[in-house]
Amino acid sequence: MTTHEILIKAQEGKLALALSGAEVKTRALEYMADSLLENADDILAANARDMDAARGHITDVMLDRLYLNAQRVADMADGIRQVAALPDPVGRVLARVERPNGLVIEKVSVPMGVVAIIYESRPNVTSDAAALAVKSGNACILRSGREAWGSCHAIVNALRQGLQKAGLPESAVSLIEDTSHTSGTELMSANGLVDLLIPRGGAGLIRACVENATVPCIQTGTGICHIYVDKDADQAKALRIIENAKTQRPSVCNAEEVCLVHQNIAAQFLPALRETLVEKREAAGLPPVELRLDAQAAAVIPGTPAGERDFDTEFLDYILAVAVVPDAQSAIGHIARHSTKHSDAIITENSDTAAQFTAQVDSAAVYVNASTRFTDGGVFGLGCEMGISTQKLHARGPMGLEELCSYKYVIHGDGQIR
Amino acid sequence: MTTHEILIKAQEGKLALALSGAEVKTRALEYMADSLLENADDILAANARDMDAARGHITDVMLDRLYLNAQRVADMADGIRQVAALPDPVGRVLARVERPNGLVIEKVSVPMGVVAIIYESRPNVTSDAAALAVKSGNACILRSGREAWGSCHAIVNALRQGLQKAGLPESAVSLIEDTSHTSGTELMSANGLVDLLIPRGGAGLIRACVENATVPCIQTGTGICHIYVDKDADQAKALRIIENAKTQRPSVCNAEEVCLVHQNIAAQFLPALRETLVEKREAAGLPPVELRLDAQAAAVIPGTPAGERDFDTEFLDYILAVAVVPDAQSAIGHIARHSTKHSDAIITENSDTAAQFTAQVDSAAVYVNASTRFTDGGVFGLGCEMGISTQKLHARGPMGLEELCSYKYVIHGDGQIR
Repeated sequence: MTTHEILIKAQEGKLALALSGAEVKTRALEYMADSLLENADDILAANARDMDAARGHITDVMLDRLYLNAQRVADMADGIRQVAALPDPVGRVLARVERPNGLVIEKVSVPMGVVAIIYESRPNVTSDAAALAVKSGNACILRSGREAWGSCHAIVNALRQGLQKAGLPESAVSLIEDTSHTSGTELMSANGLVDLLIPRGGAGLIRACVENATVPCIQTGTGICHIYVDKDADQAKALRIIENAKTQRPSVCNAEEVCLVHQNIAAQFLPALRETLVEKREAAGLPPVELRLDAQAAAVIPGTPAGERDFDTEFLDYILAVAVVPDAQSAIGHIARHSTKHSDAIITENSDTAAQFTAQVDSAAVYVNASTRFTDGGVFGLGCEMGISTQKLHARGPMGLEELCSYKYVIHGDGQIR
Repeated sequence: MTTHEILIKAQEGKLALALSGAEVKTRALEYMADSLLENADDILAANARDMDAARGHITDVMLDRLYLNAQRVADMADGIRQVAALPDPVGRVLARVERPNGLVIEKVSVPMGVVAIIYESRPNVTSDAAALAVKSGNACILRSGREAWGSCHAIVNALRQGLQKAGLPESAVSLIEDTSHTSGTELMSANGLVDLLIPRGGAGLIRACVENATVPCIQTGTGICHIYVDKDADQAKALRIIENAKTQRPSVCNAEEVCLVHQNIAAQFLPALRETLVEKREAAGLPPVELRLDAQAAAVIPGTPAGERDFDTEFLDYILAVAVVPDAQSAIGHIARHSTKHSDAIITENSDTAAQFTAQVDSAAVYVNASTRFTDGGVFGLGCEMGISTQKLHARGPMGLEELCSYKYVIHGDGQIR
C-alpha cells in the first residue's frame, strides 16, 4: 500500500480504538505479546536477513541495535505486558464544573487519534511504540529505518494478528512500506490524518521534523546534559555522580556531556576528577574518559584542549567537556546558552544556590545532587516512556501514556442558551 | 528596534518574570491597569488617528473592532484587574514521587517563556494578551495589524510604565514595530527566542502559521460548529438552542454554521425552523437567517439551494447551512468530514444517542442539549481566555492561564546514582 493509503486505512483503526474500553485494549495487548512469541521464528529469520544485508554498511553500534535474538523478542513481549498492566489513561475526568444555569462541563482525557513514529534501526521500538499507542487508544503509523524494515515488518505482522484476535482492526498498527525520504515527508505534512508525530532518532531526523512538519510534532531526545560542581559541593559526592552520569551508559541522551566547576575549588577538584575518570578507570581496565578542557581547566590538569564545538556536542561517548566558571550564575548562563534543555544538575550543599539553580535552569529535568541518568519514564513514575521531550509545548521530559492523550470538553445541558 | 532586537531584549523580560513571585506579578498588573487609565487621552488620540487613516480602507465591521472610547479603555483596565485577581498558575506541584532510593521528583508548573501573539485590528487584544502573559510569568511579543498599530503602541507604552513601576523590565511586554509580512515570518521561525506562537485572527493567518511556523504554535479559532437535531429531540428546545447559537452573536467562532436534521422529523421540524429563524424574526424586526438547504431540506421548505462550499464555510453571518441526514451515525460522519473540531452539539432526549455522539465527535467541545455559544474560558471555569485551540496538542478549547504554562521536573537527591 502507498503511504497515503495506509494513512487513510488508519482512520478506521483510530475510530475503533477510540471507542474501545480499557478491557478490550488490555486484552489486545496480551494477544499482541502472545503473538510476538508465537511468531518468534519468523521475526528472527527476518532479522537475520536484515543483519546480513546491513553488515559492512552500518557501524557495529548500529548493528547491535538492529540485532534480535530469542531473549530480545521475549523482552519485547514482556514490555507489551507491562504496558497492558498500566492504568487506562483514557476517559479520566480531569476537571468538572457545574454552572449556576445547570450546565455540567467535564474535561475528559481522549486519545490523540493517529500517532506517527519515525525511528531508525531498533526493531524493539516497533513493539514498544505500538503497545503505548494501543493502550492510550491511538492508532499508530510506524516508519522504521530501511535497514530494520524486514524485522519491523515481521513484528508488525505478529502484532496485527494479536489485534485481530481481540476484534480490533489491524489498521490500528501499521508499518509504512516506503523507507525512502518521501514517506517521512508525507507523514510530516499529513495534516488531518496524523494527529501527532514523534521522531525518535538522531539530531538530523529531529531537526528535519521540527523544520518541516506541519502536523503537530514533539521534539525528542538530544541531550547535552551539564553537571555544575559548586564551591559548596560535597566533592566526593560530585565525583561519584559524575562518574555515573558520564560512564554508566555513555550512548544515551541523559548521559553527562559537560562538567562546569566553580573556580574556587578547581585546583582541588579537577585533579580528583581526572584521577576518577582517567587514572583509576585505566587501572581497573575500564574505558577512561577523554577530558576536553577549556583554558582555565587546562592550566590545572592535563587533557585535550577543548575545541569550539566541544561545549555544543552530544558526544554519546567516553568524552567529557570541562570548563571552569566564576560562580553559580555563570554556570546557569553557560547552561542557558549551550544546553539542549534535557537534564542538567548542580552539586552543592548550599540550599540557596540549589534553589537559584532549579529556578533559573530552563530544562525538562533539573537535578540537585543526583545523576542526570535518572531522567526516564519508569523512574519518574510514568510506568513507561515513548521518548523524552525537549520542548515545552504539551509534554516535557519523559512521555508516558498520559502524554499520548489530549482532552475534550463534554457538556450536558437541558436547553441552556446564552 | 528591529524584530530581532526586540526578541533578544525580550529574553531579559522572560528571565525577570520567570523569577518573579505571585505578588510582584499581581502588583505589576494593577499598575498596568492604572497606567492604562492615566494614559487614556494618549490612547484615544492614537486611536482617532488610526480610525482616520483606516476609514474607507477597511469594512465597517473592522472599523468597529478598531474603535476605542473611554468606556472601552476602562473595560480593558478592568480586564487586567480581573486577570490580576486569578490564582497564580506558576509553581504548582502537579505531581510528586518519592523513589525507594530517596530521590524526590516534583513536576512543577513553569512559564512557557516568551509567548508571541499575532493578531489583527482589535486594540483590546493588546492588553488582554499582555495581562494573561504577565500573570503566567511569560514575556510577550505582540504583533498587531497595521491599521491598529498606533493604538496598540500607545497601549503598550502605558502597560510598560506599569511594569517599570513594579520593578519589572519593560521588555516583558513588547510591540513589534514592523507590521509587514516580514515580521510575521520572523516570529514564526524564531526558534529559541519564541517558546509559543498564538495566531489570533482569520483563517488565512492561522493557516500561514500552521504551515510555516517552526516554533511551537497553537492553532486557534475557526469554528464551523454543527447542531444535529436527532429524531428523539425535544423540538421546542432545539429551536430555542439553534436560534441562540446562530443569532445571538453570529460573528464569533462558537456560533452555529450548520444544522443537521434527522430525516424522520424533517417534515415537521424544518417548517418550524424556518418560522423561527426567518418569519418570526422578520415580524419582530430582527435580521432573518438565510437558510442554505441541501436537496432533501429544499424539498420540504423554501430557501437558497446550498452550494458546494456551504458546508465548509465559517459564515460569521446570519446564514445557516441545513442538511437532512438518515441517522445519528451519518450526522457524526458529516461532522467528522466538515467540522473544524471547535464546538458541535446534539439535541436529543435519548441518552444512548447522546453518549454515542459525545464519544465519537472529535471536537474540543461536544454539547448535549445546549448552545455551542458556551465555549468560552469564563464559562468553562478558566477565568479568562487567550483564544480557543482547535488542535489536540498541549491545549484544546479555551486556553486560560494554565494553558500558557509548561512544567519541569525538579529532582532533589543526596548523591544518588544509577
